[in-house]
Amino acid sequence: MSKGLPARQDMEKERETLQAWKERVGQELDRVVAFWMEHSHDQEHGGFFTCLGREGRVYDDLKYVWLQGRQVWMYCRLYRTFERFRHAQLLDAAKAGGEFLLRYARVAPPGKKCAFVLTRDGRPVKVQRTIFSECFYTMAMNELWRATGEVRYQTEAVEMMDQIVHWVQEDASGLGRPQLQGAPAAEPMAVPMMLLNLVEQLGEADEELAGKYAELGDWCARRILQHVQRDGQAVLENVSEGGKELPGCLGRQQNPGHTLEAGWFLLRHCIRKGDPELRAHVIDKFLLLPFHSGWDPDHGGLFYFQDADNFCPTQLEWAMKLWWPHSEAMIAFLMGYSDSGDPVLLRLFYQVAEYTFRQFRDPEYGEWFGYLSREGKVALSIKGGPFKGCFHVPRCLAMCEEMLGALLSRPAPAPSPAPTPACRGAE
Amino acid sequence: MSKGLPARQDMEKERETLQAWKERVGQELDRVVAFWMEHSHDQEHGGFFTCLGREGRVYDDLKYVWLQGRQVWMYCRLYRTFERFRHAQLLDAAKAGGEFLLRYARVAPPGKKCAFVLTRDGRPVKVQRTIFSECFYTMAMNELWRATGEVRYQTEAVEMMDQIVHWVQEDASGLGRPQLQGAPAAEPMAVPMMLLNLVEQLGEADEELAGKYAELGDWCARRILQHVQRDGQAVLENVSEGGKELPGCLGRQQNPGHTLEAGWFLLRHCIRKGDPELRAHVIDKFLLLPFHSGWDPDHGGLFYFQDADNFCPTQLEWAMKLWWPHSEAMIAFLMGYSDSGDPVLLRLFYQVAEYTFRQFRDPEYGEWFGYLSREGKVALSIKGGPFKGCFHVPRCLAMCEEMLGALLSRPAPAPSPAPTPACRGAE
Repeated sequence: MSKGLPARQDMEKERETLQAWKERVGQELDRVVAFWMEHSHDQEHGGFFTCLGREGRVYDDLKYVWLQGRQVWMYCRLYRTFERFRHAQLLDAAKAGGEFLLRYARVAPPGKKCAFVLTRDGRPVKVQRTIFSECFYTMAMNELWRATGEVRYQTEAVEMMDQIVHWVQEDASGLGRPQLQGAPAAEPMAVPMMLLNLVEQLGEADEELAGKYAELGDWCARRILQHVQRDGQAVLENVSEGGKELPGCLGRQQNPGHTLEAGWFLLRHCIRKGDPELRAHVIDKFLLLPFHSGWDPDHGGLFYFQDADNFCPTQLEWAMKLWWPHSEAMIAFLMGYSDSGDPVLLRLFYQVAEYTFRQFRDPEYGEWFGYLSREGKVALSIKGGPFKGCFHVPRCLAMCEEMLGALLSRPAPAPSPAPTPACRGAE
Repeated sequence: MSKGLPARQDMEKERETLQAWKERVGQELDRVVAFWMEHSHDQEHGGFFTCLGREGRVYDDLKYVWLQGRQVWMYCRLYRTFERFRHAQLLDAAKAGGEFLLRYARVAPPGKKCAFVLTRDGRPVKVQRTIFSECFYTMAMNELWRATGEVRYQTEAVEMMDQIVHWVQEDASGLGRPQLQGAPAAEPMAVPMMLLNLVEQLGEADEELAGKYAELGDWCARRILQHVQRDGQAVLENVSEGGKELPGCLGRQQNPGHTLEAGWFLLRHCIRKGDPELRAHVIDKFLLLPFHSGWDPDHGGLFYFQDADNFCPTQLEWAMKLWWPHSEAMIAFLMGYSDSGDPVLLRLFYQVAEYTFRQFRDPEYGEWFGYLSREGKVALSIKGGPFKGCFHVPRCLAMCEEMLGALLSRPAPAPSPAPTPACRGAE
């Protein structure tokens, strides 16, 4: 198995498998984008319907700001980076979504706080005392600027980013959360994750902003890494601001899909920094650890929540299989393989992708189901809802298509575990 | 089947079945109370641990105010009304729980707003912008007064009740919810339900308070009845304050267990008012309708959430089987039968009780499981958590034991559908 013809045959077989997945992923991306283009556009008010039933029927017309921002971002990204999606219909819908956000997302302009959900015509229904609506707003505006060249979108993105950084690093009182004596100063991993993602977004091919936010990026990475606890045996969703484990369920909570998502955010950070040692740590703790603890040995798929001491989680949906941990896992393993060449990661990509395509795809109406029972049966037939929109599925498919293309176009076979070209270049 | 010996045999057989259920229910009540007495008492700080694993092990020491108040109420109720529970250990634990609430529940005394959850030693962790912590606080204080005779508990109960009524009927701004332009003025059925329950609680054998709150009770009943919508074909969880259906998922949401619970609150109201016509309406709309729409034809058990237009609900747990809708259904059907004599309701009591005892009981460690999958498998092995404490199960068992006892001690067989003695007396 080790020399001459067999090795070349193995390589060729692997290329064929990669090629087959690239085609499968690309076709699926087309079907998914077609679903959202057909069913989600609000021609009257701009923005998107995201509460869509199995066949695409709108069952509620509320507009969740996270999902509005994400869909604008996704459309612009596809428009910018895929020749076949470079058409006016996609860009026009993204612009209409962006204008809807500009006009209505902020609850009390010029204040920056955004609503969590709006009526179809843009009146605020609910406000969350977190930064996430504002983060997706920022992503949308930055991509809109990249896709259209209109500077006003970028101004909006940078101003909102500065506000978010102020809330996170300086003074959170503007978010409106009361200070309670018994509430631990907990850091949810989502906060430095989202910020790191924004640093990557704003700094992409933009030296000025990359420089402006470089230190912030390092800070985010350090804060995410603080969630590795218990001598490296667990990644915990919530830790103290000083990086210590918190008491009770809150402290023991694990979310394998979230850890995997943080994993690929960190992998991109490693590429930027040229840090293969950190990369090895990230692969170990944020890719392999959550997979091995979180993969259901009986039915396959990733659990949604776990308790680090193996108590039963109190979230009713803890054992359900959700679409997004699986799309994030696909990205993480393929990125990990692309960067490190470790074939273990490629095998895990195949394992997760096979499960995901088998269980979540809807060959009949397009898009993926979002919520399966522990056993893998469709538990909710909806294609979109308050937390599922045009984002995780197409982002995963688009990124995997790109990464598979890049792997296939490499002149040499993927290297065995060693620094990637990108990391080597920066060393 | 209709005359002479067979009819008497039927009656005797029915008495035997009722007697068997009375014994089963009574034994289960003993086991359930023993579970909480053994595992939940915080000897150091007072109050109760409610985050208990299958065997009773404490997996978190947070104290949820709803559950603290409910357990105080339950213990006092048992102490007062069951000879076999009239022992000091129960009353002492209730008093320690009550003192814990008096000392710590209110976030900023003398303000009345209570926390939703406290640390073990009583520091506030989270505050909800609703009335429910305060409602369970009131129930606890009123029962403590009844059990101990100490007037300071009753003063506390009445003052808190007046504050709640002020928030609901006069000015909700003290709850801290922001007024948002797009948020519909929705009334969750829980609000008039809880208030009606408090009217019943405070007015029990207390002519002065019964008189003070009589009008409020009528108002609550009217508001609950407004949730019957669509020409009587659906009970909706949320309606406008004017009693109209609201748009979207919020408006279409149904919760069969909650409707059944409202059903028996209303049945008690009918007994108080002596209103057999209203009783027939309540049985039809709040007992039979949610059972027929909400009972899972494939696996048995009541769904948690449903959509009035048969869209898939967006709550991930919509098809799960939770313990409390089943305990509420047992109370509702047995009370409906006791009041009306309609044998259909007795058969439904048996059907629900058989399912409930088979699926939720834990013969090994006591108490009931709280959360089953759609198919009836235990999804969460916990016996207590942030929303499950010492309340629905023992309340159901205690009320059923009492009602079964009353049925068995009736001199004549239960009448066929006709006004009950209580209603007749008040006409």
